Amino acid sequence: MTAKMAPQLKEDIRQLIAQDGMGPGDQLPTEPELSERFGVSRNKIREALKLLEQDGLVTAIQGRGRFVSALGSLPIERPVNIYESITELLQGLGYTVTNVVLSVEESTADARVARELQLDEGDPVIRLVRLRLGDDQPMVFSINIIRRDALPGPLEYRNWGASITKILEGHGHHVVSSIARLSAANLPAEHSTTYDLAQYDPWLLVEETCISREGERVLYAVDYHRSSEIAFNVVRRR
Amino acid sequence: MTAKMAPQLKEDIRQLIAQDGMGPGDQLPTEPELSERFGVSRNKIREALKLLEQDGLVTAIQGRGRFVSALGSLPIERPVNIYESITELLQGLGYTVTNVVLSVEESTADARVARELQLDEGDPVIRLVRLRLGDDQPMVFSINIIRRDALPGPLEYRNWGASITKILEGHGHHVVSSIARLSAANLPAEHSTTYDLAQYDPWLLVEETCISREGERVLYAVDYHRSSEIAFNVVRRR
Repeated sequence: MTAKMAPQLKEDIRQLIAQDGMGPGDQLPTEPELSERFGVSRNKIREALKLLEQDGLVTAIQGRGRFVSALGSLPIERPVNIYESITELLQGLGYTVTNVVLSVEESTADARVARELQLDEGDPVIRLVRLRLGDDQPMVFSINIIRRDALPGPLEYRNWGASITKILEGHGHHVVSSIARLSAANLPAEHSTTYDLAQYDPWLLVEETCISREGERVLYAVDYHRSSEIAFNVVRRR
Repeated sequence: MTAKMAPQLKEDIRQLIAQDGMGPGDQLPTEPELSERFGVSRNKIREALKLLEQDGLVTAIQGRGRFVSALGSLPIERPVNIYESITELLQGLGYTVTNVVLSVEESTADARVARELQLDEGDPVIRLVRLRLGDDQPMVFSINIIRRDALPGPLEYRNWGASITKILEGHGHHVVSSIARLSAANLPAEHSTTYDLAQYDPWLLVEETCISREGERVLYAVDYHRSSEIAFNVVRRR
């Protein structure tokens, strides 16, 4: 079992607060209780609680314990600051996930891709275009640009319908973080006739440079999320 | 020589990142290198780096080092986890901000507003609809729902063209945090003919419950951000 990272544990505790219907001022379970509940050390729990405090979701009162803040009692559906693959995102929403591979090809880095993946322009990349379905409905239109050297070997022997995150993991590239840019967009004209996707305009566009545990920028993902089905939440603090 | 405090040192490191033209994902110099460069102890450097991490300017990856985040490298775009008013957002983008008040009225909380502001359905609220301009160009179409008791007194004597954040502050409600939901949307039909705004579809929609320092949910803001001009950045981590 992989040890949970503090941000994920933080999210688990936040979900516990939501599930238990805790309101502002309600006291959190103690460190030993949380430690037992999540099967991790008290140190890990303390680390996660510290993050919750820093986010203003939990207030610590010396000698009294930790309490849910006004902010902490608000429901958060999909926290945008937690990295997850599209597969994980859609499964988290309760969908059965399938992928339609629209194209996969050897390509080269343009100026944008070169900057995002720290390559030189013209360096080889894999360009994969897919439609991600949830319960057979279009959910995410996805363009993945992958460093060619991250996935060596001929393209034709690989199952491009599988999770790219998993495929990258199989080659020792564990994506653990990303830098994302969120905006709104209609699907580009060259894709919008595919499966009559223009009917789902506009989309929440996430352009994301994904970084592996090893610190490599292995994947640049341009994902159009169907806006009627997918939104992101974020806690904002001054 | 006075020992530098961590916040100043943090600012120095941030400036170093900007001066060296470091991009998202670029690795920072090591602790010993920074320690030598700024002539302070490694402990002080670590403290400053921790602040940079907490601010989301730097991402630490276990065993690999510290990396510049979107926030650390993109001065123009906006880190979504930092709460700021629309006025601050637009000023931060370098615009001169003006507001067109389209309507302001006494209204009542519907089910959604009641839930977001912890009111009962039918409780009184103020409904303010404005077009926020940057350098005289439409930037944000903004619907603000304000608890009626947060801003007592007749509506007609107030300058609704001013910053709502500032007006609320004048009444002792200091908005310091929010929970926001990000999605993509076209402007609703009843507003899209105003100033021919339909031409700017689609918009990045931010629905935001704003919480005061005192823990009150005072403001529910529905803001349509012009997507060609405004995007948000976020660091995501597993």
